[in-house]
Amino acid sequence: MSNLNATHDKNLKSWVETANHKQSEFPIQNLPFGIFKLIGSEDIGQACIGIGDQIVVLERLLQHSILIGKAKVAALKSRGGVLNPLMELGQDYWSDLRKQVSNFLKFDSKTASRSDVLIPIADVEMCMPAHIGDYTDFYSSINHATNVGKLFRPDNPLLPNYKHIPIAYHGRSSSIRVSGYPTRRPIGQIKNADAVEPVLGACNKLDYETELGVFVGPGNNLGEIITIDQVDEHIFGCCILNDWSARDIQAWEYQPLGPFLAKNFATTISPWIITNEALIPYRCKSHTRPSSDPEPLSYLNSPTHEKLGGLDINFEVAIRTEKMRKENISAQIIGKPPFQDMYWTIYQMLTHHTINGCNLRPGDFYGSGTISGSQKNQLGSLLEVTEGGKTDIVFSSGENRKFLEDGDEVIMKAWCGDDNNDDIVKIGFGECRSIIISALEL
Amino acid sequence: MSNLNATHDKNLKSWVETANHKQSEFPIQNLPFGIFKLIGSEDIGQACIGIGDQIVVLERLLQHSILIGKAKVAALKSRGGVLNPLMELGQDYWSDLRKQVSNFLKFDSKTASRSDVLIPIADVEMCMPAHIGDYTDFYSSINHATNVGKLFRPDNPLLPNYKHIPIAYHGRSSSIRVSGYPTRRPIGQIKNADAVEPVLGACNKLDYETELGVFVGPGNNLGEIITIDQVDEHIFGCCILNDWSARDIQAWEYQPLGPFLAKNFATTISPWIITNEALIPYRCKSHTRPSSDPEPLSYLNSPTHEKLGGLDINFEVAIRTEKMRKENISAQIIGKPPFQDMYWTIYQMLTHHTINGCNLRPGDFYGSGTISGSQKNQLGSLLEVTEGGKTDIVFSSGENRKFLEDGDEVIMKAWCGDDNNDDIVKIGFGECRSIIISALEL
Repeated sequence: MSNLNATHDKNLKSWVETANHKQSEFPIQNLPFGIFKLIGSEDIGQACIGIGDQIVVLERLLQHSILIGKAKVAALKSRGGVLNPLMELGQDYWSDLRKQVSNFLKFDSKTASRSDVLIPIADVEMCMPAHIGDYTDFYSSINHATNVGKLFRPDNPLLPNYKHIPIAYHGRSSSIRVSGYPTRRPIGQIKNADAVEPVLGACNKLDYETELGVFVGPGNNLGEIITIDQVDEHIFGCCILNDWSARDIQAWEYQPLGPFLAKNFATTISPWIITNEALIPYRCKSHTRPSSDPEPLSYLNSPTHEKLGGLDINFEVAIRTEKMRKENISAQIIGKPPFQDMYWTIYQMLTHHTINGCNLRPGDFYGSGTISGSQKNQLGSLLEVTEGGKTDIVFSSGENRKFLEDGDEVIMKAWCGDDNNDDIVKIGFGECRSIIISALEL
Repeated sequence: MSNLNATHDKNLKSWVETANHKQSEFPIQNLPFGIFKLIGSEDIGQACIGIGDQIVVLERLLQHSILIGKAKVAALKSRGGVLNPLMELGQDYWSDLRKQVSNFLKFDSKTASRSDVLIPIADVEMCMPAHIGDYTDFYSSINHATNVGKLFRPDNPLLPNYKHIPIAYHGRSSSIRVSGYPTRRPIGQIKNADAVEPVLGACNKLDYETELGVFVGPGNNLGEIITIDQVDEHIFGCCILNDWSARDIQAWEYQPLGPFLAKNFATTISPWIITNEALIPYRCKSHTRPSSDPEPLSYLNSPTHEKLGGLDINFEVAIRTEKMRKENISAQIIGKPPFQDMYWTIYQMLTHHTINGCNLRPGDFYGSGTISGSQKNQLGSLLEVTEGGKTDIVFSSGENRKFLEDGDEVIMKAWCGDDNNDDIVKIGFGECRSIIISALEL
């Protein structure tokens, strides 16, 4: 894991003033990548970098000959409406582009007159940042695995393999959509506990799962392995992921081969990719692996990884019902899952994925699995919050929920750093949001 | 399901004489699609149709202005090195192209002088026929599910959902390779029954699974459903699929989310796509669903589908060891799985896949699951043949096997029709073959 001692220079400011506000998600230390369109445009998307409440259009930096060398190559590769060719280039190119854009944006830069490279975020629509070839979903929160295990297998919540192997399964890439796209309630086979046979019906137990998503960089050839020491070169960056789950469909279909239609009807991601490099200062030890637990097999471990494989990212998931929108009531926070509590790290996940020679391609994507902390207010899914529908959430609007209703909007946020600590730069992820729309009529 | 009464005109012959041989896999009634390169060429692949021991190059048909109307559009769409744009066009275009190519190739055609549109199959290398976006693997043989269930869950071989729901999971698209590409033995976590902890090692229980693969045509938008009556318009065609499986890795990792590294190290497919249209005369009733079984839910059924949803396809899987190749001993047939014995049909699989609104894209791909008949000589995997390694297969070379060894070549074939019945046209699928190469050194 390279550049482990890197920290953000907290005194670095930008001539884009909104980037310097204490609450800004996109200070000059962040510089997340995305693909945007002007609102209503039919054009192919264009690559950009977020700064304050603005985007920097990479194409305009090229037009002004502001980028040179590897950074220029990287910007040229970002022209096709998806970031996959940039992801393929590798860390040297990503870093150089970030560095030159940072130099261009910094406060004392002589390029401050170049504000024509900026567009307000309010004027653009963010698109899917990459073409996702394969999508894998892990199961790396031991708290989540234990909570869910209790509901599905009361006698046997945490299976014997859990502390040895980063469990994962393949998800569906075709149905991944970017934040803002509505999510249709799925139809499926449901067998209620007291029924003899299943019926076809709209999902009654629609849930979210709060996860971190990871975009793969150059990747590996089929039959090759990416070792734990090489992983840094193969992670482009991260976003927020909502792994929608139909719990009633899942309970009936998932044996013996795992989730299928309970998950593949929709997955929502946030549009900004926070680079692996921007996250380096937030590396930490995982909170949930006591020394009494089995040592990971050597391919999943290294001294540095053990100390700094975790990531201190704060998550927050909130719901805003249709009534709350009409009555101007703010979204209600349901959980604040801490990513530091994950049992397996995103680096272990990637190396494990390739240990059998499985090839990862630029833009391939994986989810961490639902993030849940050990506290009641740190849970990443409704299944855990309401204990499978046994209890209710009560909203300030007077409504209550066991699972999601039509019209509910789920809003996920994530950030590194601490609003109350000026010594740590805040790096925001933006938002991952989607409104539930009603099922098709049967 | 359209054109259900279509039969092949068995008297139709081609001026390509090898197409008329009784043993020919590619008579004029077949006309499978593929992508080829001249051997050793670095070019992008080109679309072709198989006939006898030759291929018809679609580009050359265009150059000679042999195709008109929809067939011409279809051939133009096949230019990009993959068949996805052709798959997107739909049944009318596929049919018209097949019809015009059939007219061009038939015996009394005045175009017989146009033999410059042909290249011998022996001179070409077949490539991946399409870019596969998402790959799904079903589990549709009740014999296989029962046989495997007995090994993994002796008390509970067939789960309660099996007769109601076509079970499936998502596989990995990045590691699908075409016939002839070698398969590297994977490394993974293995926990032997008597061990306390897992170790990292090369797979000791490497297996094949004999399946039918299906390529999706136009597909559906996210949130929409393809009904059982619409399925025919959305199946482009079929091939042979070898779903390689690492049984020891699988046993340790598969709970609770299903197979992952045990499968995603490699999948091999045959290069020729046998069109849905060419398979119509072999439709039949499934053999394995007695009337005492639960009626499928209505979205999975229709009167026609019940009578003609099955497909009478013969499969054959054989092994040839390194020693057998050296001593010029033929491959030994291990199993002859009958596709007619599948519990769920490829049409039920497709409609089930979309019932929750999951979108299928042109070129998306799904496997039937291992095909196994009810007889000992009809099994589609070694796991079943050797009962999980309890018994041995003995080869004519004097060798024996519980699972696959390095150097073993697995060769799968499939065909419709009967060599001993001249009234039924034989439609061959070609071959799906791959040699096992040794694992990476740890």
